[in-house]
Amino acid sequence: SPLMNPIQCRALEIENAPSFTVGKKFQLDDVIEAQQFDRDLLNAIFKVAREMEKIEKNSSGSQILKGYLMATLFYEPSTRTRLSFESAMKRLGGEVLTTENAREFSSAAKGETLEDTIRTVEGYADIIVMRHFESGAARRAATTAGVPIINAGDGPGQHPTQALLDVYTIEREIGKLDGIKVGLVGDLANGRTVRSLAYLLAKYQDVKIYFVSPDVVKMKDDIKEYLTLEGVEWEESADLMDVASKCDIVYQTRIQRERFGERNDLYEEARGKYIVDQDVLRVMQKHAVVMHPLPRLDEIAVDVDADPRAAYFRQAKNGLYIRMALLKLLLVGW
Amino acid sequence: SPLMNPIQCRALEIENAPSFTVGKKFQLDDVIEAQQFDRDLLNAIFKVAREMEKIEKNSSGSQILKGYLMATLFYEPSTRTRLSFESAMKRLGGEVLTTENAREFSSAAKGETLEDTIRTVEGYADIIVMRHFESGAARRAATTAGVPIINAGDGPGQHPTQALLDVYTIEREIGKLDGIKVGLVGDLANGRTVRSLAYLLAKYQDVKIYFVSPDVVKMKDDIKEYLTLEGVEWEESADLMDVASKCDIVYQTRIQRERFGERNDLYEEARGKYIVDQDVLRVMQKHAVVMHPLPRLDEIAVDVDADPRAAYFRQAKNGLYIRMALLKLLLVGW
Amino acid sequence: SPLMNPIQCRALEIENAPSFTVGKKFQLDDVIEAQQFDRDLLNAIFKVAREMEKIEKNSSGSQILKGYLMATLFYEPSTRTRLSFESAMKRLGGEVLTTENAREFSSAAKGETLEDTIRTVEGYADIIVMRHFESGAARRAATTAGVPIINAGDGPGQHPTQALLDVYTIEREIGKLDGIKVGLVGDLANGRTVRSLAYLLAKYQDVKIYFVSPDVVKMKDDIKEYLTLEGVEWEESADLMDVASKCDIVYQTRIQRERFGERNDLYEEARGKYIVDQDVLRVMQKHAVVMHPLPRLDEIAVDVDADPRAAYFRQAKNGLYIRMALLKLLLVGW
Repeated sequence: SPLMNPIQCRALEIENAPSFTVGKKFQLDDVIEAQQFDRDLLNAIFKVAREMEKIEKNSSGSQILKGYLMATLFYEPSTRTRLSFESAMKRLGGEVLTTENAREFSSAAKGETLEDTIRTVEGYADIIVMRHFESGAARRAATTAGVPIINAGDGPGQHPTQALLDVYTIEREIGKLDGIKVGLVGDLANGRTVRSLAYLLAKYQDVKIYFVSPDVVKMKDDIKEYLTLEGVEWEESADLMDVASKCDIVYQTRIQRERFGERNDLYEEARGKYIVDQDVLRVMQKHAVVMHPLPRLDEIAVDVDADPRAAYFRQAKNGLYIRMALLKLLLVGW
Repeated sequence: SPLMNPIQCRALEIENAPSFTVGKKFQLDDVIEAQQFDRDLLNAIFKVAREMEKIEKNSSGSQILKGYLMATLFYEPSTRTRLSFESAMKRLGGEVLTTENAREFSSAAKGETLEDTIRTVEGYADIIVMRHFESGAARRAATTAGVPIINAGDGPGQHPTQALLDVYTIEREIGKLDGIKVGLVGDLANGRTVRSLAYLLAKYQDVKIYFVSPDVVKMKDDIKEYLTLEGVEWEESADLMDVASKCDIVYQTRIQRERFGERNDLYEEARGKYIVDQDVLRVMQKHAVVMHPLPRLDEIAVDVDADPRAAYFRQAKNGLYIRMALLKLLLVGW
Repeated sequence: SPLMNPIQCRALEIENAPSFTVGKKFQLDDVIEAQQFDRDLLNAIFKVAREMEKIEKNSSGSQILKGYLMATLFYEPSTRTRLSFESAMKRLGGEVLTTENAREFSSAAKGETLEDTIRTVEGYADIIVMRHFESGAARRAATTAGVPIINAGDGPGQHPTQALLDVYTIEREIGKLDGIKVGLVGDLANGRTVRSLAYLLAKYQDVKIYFVSPDVVKMKDDIKEYLTLEGVEWEESADLMDVASKCDIVYQTRIQRERFGERNDLYEEARGKYIVDQDVLRVMQKHAVVMHPLPRLDEIAVDVDADPRAAYFRQAKNGLYIRMALLKLLLVGW
């Protein structure tokens, strides 16, 4: 064709080539649990996430992951998490295969193992983001797969990208991680979010953690013992106002009705106990922020949203940058 | 790399740049209801839709919306409407995040508000196309969102892109909007389609509207009063043959069984009363056309499809062009 | 803009142009059933599939189908098949519209015909991949549609891309199709896979087929008569070890519980009868392979997976290459 002169051919080659030089290999093959991350690695990932903030502002998009295909293999629906990962992949020029009803793969009727499913899906995609209802499923998938696996939550187990985005948000909002005071509020017994966050905060210096929760959903001993072992100061408190006045971060969580079974009276008592509202804002320091993993019910009053210290929607957005960073690192390296 | 000489680098930059110059800002921030459109605006949008017809014929696709991400946030499934929007976005080089089970976001168990959901999703996408089961939901979303919202139907409320594609189809098929005669047939009480169409037709000169419907589903007084106020001639008729012989447009609609509750006898009587078939075609003028918002049951006989005056599949296709135009206008302007 | 010099403009044109020259028209308009393929056509398609293997290894992706849009119209879910087609389309630079709940289009409540649905969807996409619960649905769609239809399974009817990938896998694994010995094992009465495979194998010379199945699910007479007519040698055997020792291919299938209704005793007896395990591997020849259309339960022992003769995951991957080839051929020709 008259258009196919050599210069234009090369332009085409360029277009197909990844726009970024493929970098030094990322030290992780998969992202399965918060325990894989140490302070240096978190710091390096956060630098990449900052770069991703800049890329995302550029409306014409990036081509870093052009030609790469991500499969979202969700055994239970989690629209929020799925959209965040899919947006991350597409903001980097990558493509997505979606499945929200992955249970069908392993339905009772058909009975396929997770391992067989993974070996099939890895033939169709370059990376698999997986959500499962069973603790340990992500690790099993990673053992089988030849492509990277990212755990987007496996039952009561881990949800490592949530833990990373929480720490990243603290650094972005407060400007540091050493020496911070964090109040963890609400359901501390069942929330994997606050458990992972406490775990990761132990990697920083001079951190102080306050646990504020109804008696029925108190932080479990394993995390308390771990913090003590790591030299992290912690205390339990029933006085949200006092804690809020001292902390850099008030991290509120939802009381989950499904944990209370038939005892609706206990649920109603627990959910009303610690609410973040204008009274709490009034005692909080000017630089401090309110975080929440979302969705919220009424544990944060709606009129808090207008306060600049309400950081929870910025926190959700940070999930995008963290996931962009991890996808980039797992697929093309540093 | 030896390939990275300056010329090729620039070719890359070009590729990433939007292919269209970003134009004068579109006067609407969101598309929520038919009342936002006046005659001049409709005319200008229809010109863009005509351009979109040309782009769509070009199989290699357009890059106008390259780098833009649309989220389809559907609280109730509507595959037809969703595919139409997603095709429109992709035909312009844009990308899509899909959720058909958005109710999960706001499930009873979790109880998140629509406003919170919107504030999360707007972090992942540049525009949100929303379908909801509650009238007014789209307006609430638009009030909250920093990105444009397109209402793809909110319960018994509005479905403005359907209204626009109907008017666009009349102009494409008949060549004019002033002076036309339109027969609206079928369920005029419950169909938001015919209500919006009647509303928009009042913006043109010398329009005459005939209402042809079983007694139980007659056009409601609010629309009749509005038409009278706007100086639009209208009349009710029980004689489809007479109306069909006079009209430029016979706009047939489906009688919706779900509106009749237990009264199946009334439903059966209503649905059989006005059928568009070969007898109707015979009395229609040569230039006149049959329209229908689809899906149809048997209110238009299948053998009508072969007649060139059967415009309903062209009408469905026009939905693509209208949606391409609106996406382009909301995201990059005129 | 200063960037828009003529060279760069042309680079842009090139980018939008299909990277492949559009070739000689493919002889099929649609892919509906195995009977459409003869030996020469299979051979030519397999050559394209081999090219696709090379393209897929190139992580930066192909642009052969850039600007093309595929709709996956699935009336019943089949995640495996859907992901395979969608991966194929995206590996070639094409885009996808997904619908897994296509039944909603034709729900009892709304009652739209398949033909009307197809006429709407063909307005949004360049090719339709359809799975349906009724035999013959794909052919009806193809009769209506102006765009190519690929049958991704229509009830108890056909699943032609599975048949093609099976034959392709045999050629890739054994290096030939003439003169091969194939053992078909398991549910031969209900498996459309083995029926289509037997049908296609009849197109090659000196093929010998062994049927090994519990009495309740024996191969039906129509296929046996067809093979006899075509001069293909076949025999039934109850001795899996003997068959495995002679064959190039042991093609195992799943006994489907749903076929046995209330008779769980018969199901349990049938499913345990012929298992591919280490004992079977021991008698198989070195060059022979085990195939399976997946998903499997325990009709192949998990420890077989580690044997290089376990070809079933490579077989699943070959589905990708066959589907890439068919999409390319139907959309842009040879």
